[in-house]
Amino acid sequence: MNYQNIWKKAEKIIPGGNGLLSKRPKRFLSSGWPTYYKKAKGIYLWTLDNKKLIDFSIMGIGTSVLGYANSVIDNKVKSAIDNGINTTLNCIEEYELAKEILKYNKFAHQVKFAKGGGEAMSMAIRIARSNSKKYKVVFSGYHGWHDWYISANLTNKRNLNNHLLKNLKPLGVPKNLKDSIIPLKFNDHLELKKIFKENKDAGILVIEGARNDYPSLEFVKTINELKSKKKIIVIIDEITSGWRETLGGVYKKVNLKPDIVVYGKALGNGYPISAVVGKKDIMKISNYTFISSTAWTERIGFVAGLETIKFMKKNNVPSKIINKGKKIINGWKKISIKNGLNISINKFYSMPTFNFNYNKDNDRLSTLFTKYMLQKGYVATNYMFVTYAHKDNEIKKYLNVCDLVFKKIKKDLTNKNKLKKISPRKMIY
Amino acid sequence: MNYQNIWKKAEKIIPGGNGLLSKRPKRFLSSGWPTYYKKAKGIYLWTLDNKKLIDFSIMGIGTSVLGYANSVIDNKVKSAIDNGINTTLNCIEEYELAKEILKYNKFAHQVKFAKGGGEAMSMAIRIARSNSKKYKVVFSGYHGWHDWYISANLTNKRNLNNHLLKNLKPLGVPKNLKDSIIPLKFNDHLELKKIFKENKDAGILVIEGARNDYPSLEFVKTINELKSKKKIIVIIDEITSGWRETLGGVYKKVNLKPDIVVYGKALGNGYPISAVVGKKDIMKISNYTFISSTAWTERIGFVAGLETIKFMKKNNVPSKIINKGKKIINGWKKISIKNGLNISINKFYSMPTFNFNYNKDNDRLSTLFTKYMLQKGYVATNYMFVTYAHKDNEIKKYLNVCDLVFKKIKKDLTNKNKLKKISPRKMIY
Repeated sequence: MNYQNIWKKAEKIIPGGNGLLSKRPKRFLSSGWPTYYKKAKGIYLWTLDNKKLIDFSIMGIGTSVLGYANSVIDNKVKSAIDNGINTTLNCIEEYELAKEILKYNKFAHQVKFAKGGGEAMSMAIRIARSNSKKYKVVFSGYHGWHDWYISANLTNKRNLNNHLLKNLKPLGVPKNLKDSIIPLKFNDHLELKKIFKENKDAGILVIEGARNDYPSLEFVKTINELKSKKKIIVIIDEITSGWRETLGGVYKKVNLKPDIVVYGKALGNGYPISAVVGKKDIMKISNYTFISSTAWTERIGFVAGLETIKFMKKNNVPSKIINKGKKIINGWKKISIKNGLNISINKFYSMPTFNFNYNKDNDRLSTLFTKYMLQKGYVATNYMFVTYAHKDNEIKKYLNVCDLVFKKIKKDLTNKNKLKKISPRKMIY
Repeated sequence: MNYQNIWKKAEKIIPGGNGLLSKRPKRFLSSGWPTYYKKAKGIYLWTLDNKKLIDFSIMGIGTSVLGYANSVIDNKVKSAIDNGINTTLNCIEEYELAKEILKYNKFAHQVKFAKGGGEAMSMAIRIARSNSKKYKVVFSGYHGWHDWYISANLTNKRNLNNHLLKNLKPLGVPKNLKDSIIPLKFNDHLELKKIFKENKDAGILVIEGARNDYPSLEFVKTINELKSKKKIIVIIDEITSGWRETLGGVYKKVNLKPDIVVYGKALGNGYPISAVVGKKDIMKISNYTFISSTAWTERIGFVAGLETIKFMKKNNVPSKIINKGKKIINGWKKISIKNGLNISINKFYSMPTFNFNYNKDNDRLSTLFTKYMLQKGYVATNYMFVTYAHKDNEIKKYLNVCDLVFKKIKKDLTNKNKLKKISPRKMIY
């Protein structure tokens, strides 16, 4: 089947071809990416023409933390469906999930739910701004598509370069929002101090729990100090990092003291559910600023969230994921040295990334990696989300295949003409 | 079971008790509302202690347009669940639903999906503003919780009074957004002309397809003229009104010429799915302003949307709903006259509303209506969403019960002391 033709048709009627940048084929291969799935189970994917592939890549961009079509979660969801999912009355699971999440977030007293991560972050910012006379936000990392965030590039079109994408135009974001948000380099505690010293109207800090690295000791210390001394409202975006390495967020591992934590992705094992979790004094203002949406009260997300947390606890999922991640990171290290490939590897165990250190050839080499892995039946790129479903024997097999592919790439590096002909993946929007 | 105690506990850990104003008990009864459901099927609800109730009220605030737990839709969804709902690759149903929606929206060429209505409206505004140098929005009606909309009350705290809620404080909305949005009275074509004449930086118009009434001929004519003469971008919010009276939006019935139409609620029969549908020239800019979210690419919403549209077409749902709505409206009229009750009834067939004309007693009388109906086994208030599942014999029975209740209310009206003791529902946030 010609997936590329279907995708081209999709691009004509859906701007970008789909609703999520991270799932666009061009980010993996310039051509030949399978693009669509028909069926998925565990870490296996079946393409539209029933070709079976093994997923060592983004696993639903981190949502499917227990693996695809986990029957324990799915059976609970299907039973909820049989009993109605959206009625005039409320489902009790909204309350139960709030209770359950608070068990694992001792700093917090209240929860507000949404479906997606971006909208939950938007809600967190509204709540934080309601609580502070200092409305400016200092941020590091990726936090979605909403105006409060994209407005960073109204001030300087390079502000989001290292957090989202290079030179993104803030089209359609009201110009009045200029200077409402200030970028910060992750783990740069000196810059952090300086920004809050120089910007008297900055009262909110937003960082990710982890992305390429965990927050450093100095970074954490500075944030906790700013919070206690300057009453900064601290929001930790754990949409990507949460429920992978702890029951809750990475903030618990590094002793960060948040006011608000935001969860999404892994919380529902693929079913849309997100949560803004915070201190009562801060959250209670949601009763006075209007934040309400029909979609948020639909039942499935709550049921999936409850069952996912239960499954994680019962099966000790976070520590298993960390161990699997370490195996992958150590494997990459070993085989890159063995094959004489110069790569850097990040330290966030549950979301390993390696980057080629060959300057302008990097995207070409990542493309080659994806291409060669696909020839061996793997959906893979230079970053991945480790899940509970990645069994140790599968990791071993995967690393063996990586070894062969690294060897091939090393060889290709000596053939500059061949390399030049590779059409590189495109990470842009 | 004491629902009220559970709700009080919920209010302690979820601001407001749940994620949606419209499902809060105080909007129906000050006490005694069943609040939670365990099971739902068709128009029937089972409370936590298995009491069966008949729903002639908001039916999942309009989402469950085919009735609760419709097995045709649900079986398709369950089969999608078995095949994985959120993977590294894309589900083909996103493309298929885009194609299907465009079939019924001939003015449009492209679709972007979200899960909730509020976030879809936020997306529509971003897209419209990307296309216009005139960033100010003129609006009528309810359009969600996002900053672009709530900012209306930065200019005047009464701006949202007749569209959302009285005297809502725009807490947490950046003050810089003041004067970015202008309220308009629905169907006031003279005010509409005046606003666009006086505000040279207003380039976007947002109205609802219908709420209490359809757009009038003059209103439609003026909008279409403004669009062709002043190149105003016209957005029709059909989140509440769409897929009830036509396959698509009410705009088709009244010959409105939109640039963008936004759908939600009924489109997925309770499963969260929303869509921004528009002309290519306007929509294509989404490729350059960053609008992307993981939750949007999850499979269930697309599958439910496809199956709901198919079911609607096959079973001629819109015309059936209109007929049922007319029966209810005519029934209310008849029994109100018979019992000498002074009420006004709106004209939007698929979403009938009656209002008591007794000034300060109105909310008390609506509360009494709900209370007496509940005693007869009905979940009911003074407005309702008509669905395919409301069978004609059920409508007949309901109207008979309404007749008895109206009679009782008429009697209560003569007893001012008894009336004063009724604690009225509260429609506020």
